[in-house]
Amino acid sequence: MNQEIQKTAQQARQASLETAALITQDKNHALANIGKALQANAEKIIIANAEDLAQAEKENLNQALLKRLKFDQVKLDVVVEGIAQLIRLDDPVGRTLGCTELDKGLELYQVTSPIGVLGIIFESRPDALVQISTLALKSGNAVLLKGGSEAVKTNRALADVIYQASVEAGMPEYWMALLETRQDVNDMLAQDDSIDLIIPRGSNAFVKYIMDNTRIMVLGHADGICHVYIDKDADLDMAVNIAFDAKCQYAAVCNAMETLLVDQEIAAKFLPRIKEKYDAAGVELRGDAKTCKIIAAAAATEEDWQTEYNDLILSIKIVNGVDEAIDHINGYSSHHTDSIVTENAEAATQFMDRIDSAGVYWNVSTRFADGFVYGLGAEVGISTHKIHARGPVGLEGLVSYKYKLIGKGQTMAEYTTDKKLNHKPLNKKFLL
Amino acid sequence: MNQEIQKTAQQARQASLETAALITQDKNHALANIGKALQANAEKIIIANAEDLAQAEKENLNQALLKRLKFDQVKLDVVVEGIAQLIRLDDPVGRTLGCTELDKGLELYQVTSPIGVLGIIFESRPDALVQISTLALKSGNAVLLKGGSEAVKTNRALADVIYQASVEAGMPEYWMALLETRQDVNDMLAQDDSIDLIIPRGSNAFVKYIMDNTRIMVLGHADGICHVYIDKDADLDMAVNIAFDAKCQYAAVCNAMETLLVDQEIAAKFLPRIKEKYDAAGVELRGDAKTCKIIAAAAATEEDWQTEYNDLILSIKIVNGVDEAIDHINGYSSHHTDSIVTENAEAATQFMDRIDSAGVYWNVSTRFADGFVYGLGAEVGISTHKIHARGPVGLEGLVSYKYKLIGKGQTMAEYTTDKKLNHKPLNKKFLL
Repeated sequence: MNQEIQKTAQQARQASLETAALITQDKNHALANIGKALQANAEKIIIANAEDLAQAEKENLNQALLKRLKFDQVKLDVVVEGIAQLIRLDDPVGRTLGCTELDKGLELYQVTSPIGVLGIIFESRPDALVQISTLALKSGNAVLLKGGSEAVKTNRALADVIYQASVEAGMPEYWMALLETRQDVNDMLAQDDSIDLIIPRGSNAFVKYIMDNTRIMVLGHADGICHVYIDKDADLDMAVNIAFDAKCQYAAVCNAMETLLVDQEIAAKFLPRIKEKYDAAGVELRGDAKTCKIIAAAAATEEDWQTEYNDLILSIKIVNGVDEAIDHINGYSSHHTDSIVTENAEAATQFMDRIDSAGVYWNVSTRFADGFVYGLGAEVGISTHKIHARGPVGLEGLVSYKYKLIGKGQTMAEYTTDKKLNHKPLNKKFLL
Repeated sequence: MNQEIQKTAQQARQASLETAALITQDKNHALANIGKALQANAEKIIIANAEDLAQAEKENLNQALLKRLKFDQVKLDVVVEGIAQLIRLDDPVGRTLGCTELDKGLELYQVTSPIGVLGIIFESRPDALVQISTLALKSGNAVLLKGGSEAVKTNRALADVIYQASVEAGMPEYWMALLETRQDVNDMLAQDDSIDLIIPRGSNAFVKYIMDNTRIMVLGHADGICHVYIDKDADLDMAVNIAFDAKCQYAAVCNAMETLLVDQEIAAKFLPRIKEKYDAAGVELRGDAKTCKIIAAAAATEEDWQTEYNDLILSIKIVNGVDEAIDHINGYSSHHTDSIVTENAEAATQFMDRIDSAGVYWNVSTRFADGFVYGLGAEVGISTHKIHARGPVGLEGLVSYKYKLIGKGQTMAEYTTDKKLNHKPLNKKFLL
């Protein structure tokens, strides 16, 4: 057991008891101060990022990664604007979810409260550090952060600015800490007495590694193996647009389509049309046997149905109706987002009821699966688990609740003899 | 990997895709049929229970355990009445949690859906099998059940009747299965591809064992180390009543008080009064040094503050005000339920905001922490975790949600150029 990480986690736990009781105004004040401090320290942050970039180039990291790693004035302005938006969002803490009068003078309130201490492991984008730490602040949680090792200097600069500005504005000491090594992460996984939730962002294999090595609850973001199913009753113009958008509008993200399912009745009409567009965009096609009889495509293997390409590659399968589409998706989907294109409401209902995914869409591109698009504000990740939070996780996913029971001295003994509970729902907010 | 349990879990997963789409009427019909079948097979069930009881007596199990194990006509009537109540409760599935118009003709619905496959491990009370399986049915989940080994014959008889009656009434095959050995449980923990949530009911050590041995999400019910704090501004008559009820009304349950905290200003007045009542009830007292100066009590050790006695034993500590009470509770509580007795609203607010427990009470006995008392109906357990569900977990804790997005062919490409999202909240229910 690493004493240092244990101490860091315990300090965060202590701080979390204070952040849980902060009022909205104080949290927003701290957020505003963070926004100001980030702008005031722009030069320092950008210089630190230049050092990370130079190191990354020396190590021949690929262009996509370098692009994600880059943190310039433009990106700084974006995250500072994100903080301004966060200030305007409602406080997720202290919301009354329900109120029941158990008996006269005995009122039960279910009230949202912070989770406590979050441990969040994120990838190389330094913007993520700002988003995650400010989401944690607004939701009243303490947070331990571990970013990508390529961004170590940028993350250190950002974390220092955010921590100092927030504590200066009244946040309790130790409410936030930056972990810097892989070993720190392993040590963090053992702090189940102090940490309430781990949110790992990364590959499926990475999320599974985390789950195998901690007894702390994990909110997992697995791969996005998203499907679009073109039903026999689809509007084919719409089908072409959606199938193209879902694959080509931004192929490197988790809500892009990886497998296209096509009903056999319309395959001969539809596939040549979409192939023309995919060819123009440079999409590599891999089809099942039936597909390859209609259009030129490489033969898809079993592995293709299980793969998140994150690239301009697509697997295509011809199915016999919505039932076979549903079976394929429930068997291979990563439970992220799947869409049906059809004019048939019955088929759409079947699809949305029976597909076991966080997002089930009707006549829309899978690319809409995103916290900003859903109106949640920034997201800490997209959960492909079904416990606690599912789909894009914003502020609401970072709170739990408490039951607050207010009485006048009631004892259970009275209710085993003369008194009776009445369970009357009240439309009341918790307010003392 | 045990092939049999793997197959059972996969079959349950397949069944869960069908149970998820069942309408309320069909689920209630199956529940009614289960109630009828339990009564029709009463004799068979009670004979099986007599065999379990005879075996338990041969093995010299203690009286408390025998009492819990016993399943006679009286208990059968109670669980059948519970099923009738469950039929009357609202369906937790298909409830619209929110609706947002992302743009004209693009509506996002957040709709409750079943979790999928539950794995529930429970103690020796056979009534629990009936409660848990029917809660799972009403919430649209498939379920794998493992009960206490003492109740093996009763559980088998109950499970057979429930399974046959439910499938006869239209539930899909394999929606429910009974596991019978400890090894089955270990094999179940490896089925993370099929099982979505494990709910272990038992000791802290048992819950930790489960968490250490699975990557499946665990909804843990840890020990109940509940506190009552008597503030300096307490009404002392009320304080005596609550402190007595919380310890003595039923000492063997998780919501009974284990530690009594008393403000130093009123300790000399309060402690002799409550001691008189505890003495009459045969409560063994263990106090800190200050307590022992006021009343006769054994010296409490560090271990006492960490112990769930589940018995007529109580540890008592004198504290200097609400802050020290809060610190003690946050340090030693199992985050179950803690209560303050005071006439001072400011102290009560501090206590309820800053205590990190599922239940925070003001002027009420901790014994009220219970699903029936809260009006949730039967409970599958009381969660001392903060993720997903906290406190008593009834039907609402057994559902997740899906995002259903309904469009008219929208692509993301349009929203990067001419179109804009408007995020207008709609007061609409999902209905196709």
